[in-house]
Amino acid sequence: MALSARNLLKGKVKEVTKGMVMAEVTIEVAPGVDVVSAITTSSVERLGLATGKEVEVVIKATSVMLNA
Amino acid sequence: MALSARNLLKGKVKEVTKGMVMAEVTIEVAPGVDVVSAITTSSVERLGLATGKEVEVVIKATSVMLNA
Amino acid sequence: MALSARNLLKGKVKEVTKGMVMAEVTIEVAPGVDVVSAITTSSVERLGLATGKEVEVVIKATSVMLNA
Amino acid sequence: MALSARNLLKGKVKEVTKGMVMAEVTIEVAPGVDVVSAITTSSVERLGLATGKEVEVVIKATSVMLNA
Amino acid sequence: MALSARNLLKGKVKEVTKGMVMAEVTIEVAPGVDVVSAITTSSVERLGLATGKEVEVVIKATSVMLNA
Amino acid sequence: MALSARNLLKGKVKEVTKGMVMAEVTIEVAPGVDVVSAITTSSVERLGLATGKEVEVVIKATSVMLNA
Repeated sequence: MALSARNLLKGKVKEVTKGMVMAEVTIEVAPGVDVVSAITTSSVERLGLATGKEVEVVIKATSVMLNA
Repeated sequence: MALSARNLLKGKVKEVTKGMVMAEVTIEVAPGVDVVSAITTSSVERLGLATGKEVEVVIKATSVMLNA
Repeated sequence: MALSARNLLKGKVKEVTKGMVMAEVTIEVAPGVDVVSAITTSSVERLGLATGKEVEVVIKATSVMLNA
Repeated sequence: MALSARNLLKGKVKEVTKGMVMAEVTIEVAPGVDVVSAITTSSVERLGLATGKEVEVVIKATSVMLNA
Repeated sequence: MALSARNLLKGKVKEVTKGMVMAEVTIEVAPGVDVVSAITTSSVERLGLATGKEVEVVIKATSVMLNA
Repeated sequence: MALSARNLLKGKVKEVTKGMVMAEVTIEVAPGVDVVSAITTSSVERLGLATGKEVEVVIKATSVMLNA
């Protein structure tokens, strides 16, 4: 299956901080380039996210702004 | 000033498609890595976005999902 | 692979309206229950979305509001 | 009054988990079909959300992705 | 009923531009302060949005960024 | 530089509540008109957000709904 989301970047989990409901996950998508994601702590646990795990970052085009 | 958005990636506009209200902008953020943004056509015009222009991609952490 | 998005609903495409940049896709997720998605027209074409096609609706929990 | 949001699903609160700032609310929208919402804990309290309460799930079409 | 969305601002429609799928609506929320909304053209028609109509702007807290 | 986001409102921080991962920031954008933002606690710290600080609220047009 393929996602409609236009932005799919491969990366590796660098750090996970879990709160009661929300968690923050830092993913290295290229040497020196990190992406930060805020998802539910339940998803972090369900997906078994931990440092070193390979993931794909998914971002819908309508969520992307530009600064020029 | 600094943005609260956690994801700021520098890139160069590769392609712009303008519709009546929304436009699609493709930005190369690393060799072979493109990010697609859907913003209003008014913003494309106000910012003077065109192929080759240097921009910064801005994405809020709560808009980033993971696939693992 | 599994998505961090908490909401995944199976359905069937009922209608597709394509604009220059954005498209509107109506998906029936249960008898009499439709979900409407606004994605890029490029994604509609890349995924070959058309009436009758089986799809999965994906919604991040932080995008869901409540009225009570 | 009517909302511009295209997706309005009636349901019943099944579970509420409250963190310091964000809360996770699970709503049953059809037998066996749950939707998860991440909203502020302040809103959970202001709306008096608790198991059994009838609510309406509200989702903007631009927040809906497809997997096909 | 009450919405979980934390930001509700009363205003008056100032301008509507309709595309094939998406529309842009400008709302004056205070003298000299406008808010711009991108919603589907179907919603603009369903809600009968036109210059002068009184509306309420609705924004989820997780969609609000800060620049400081 | 200029942001593609169509909604930029000047204001002053009125209250900050910090959770483990997410924080809630209330900003007064006009006398008696508050806007609430949910951003990461890391951003609150990185930007030094505290009561009285002048900030700019940033909201993408596709995140704005209407009630009419």
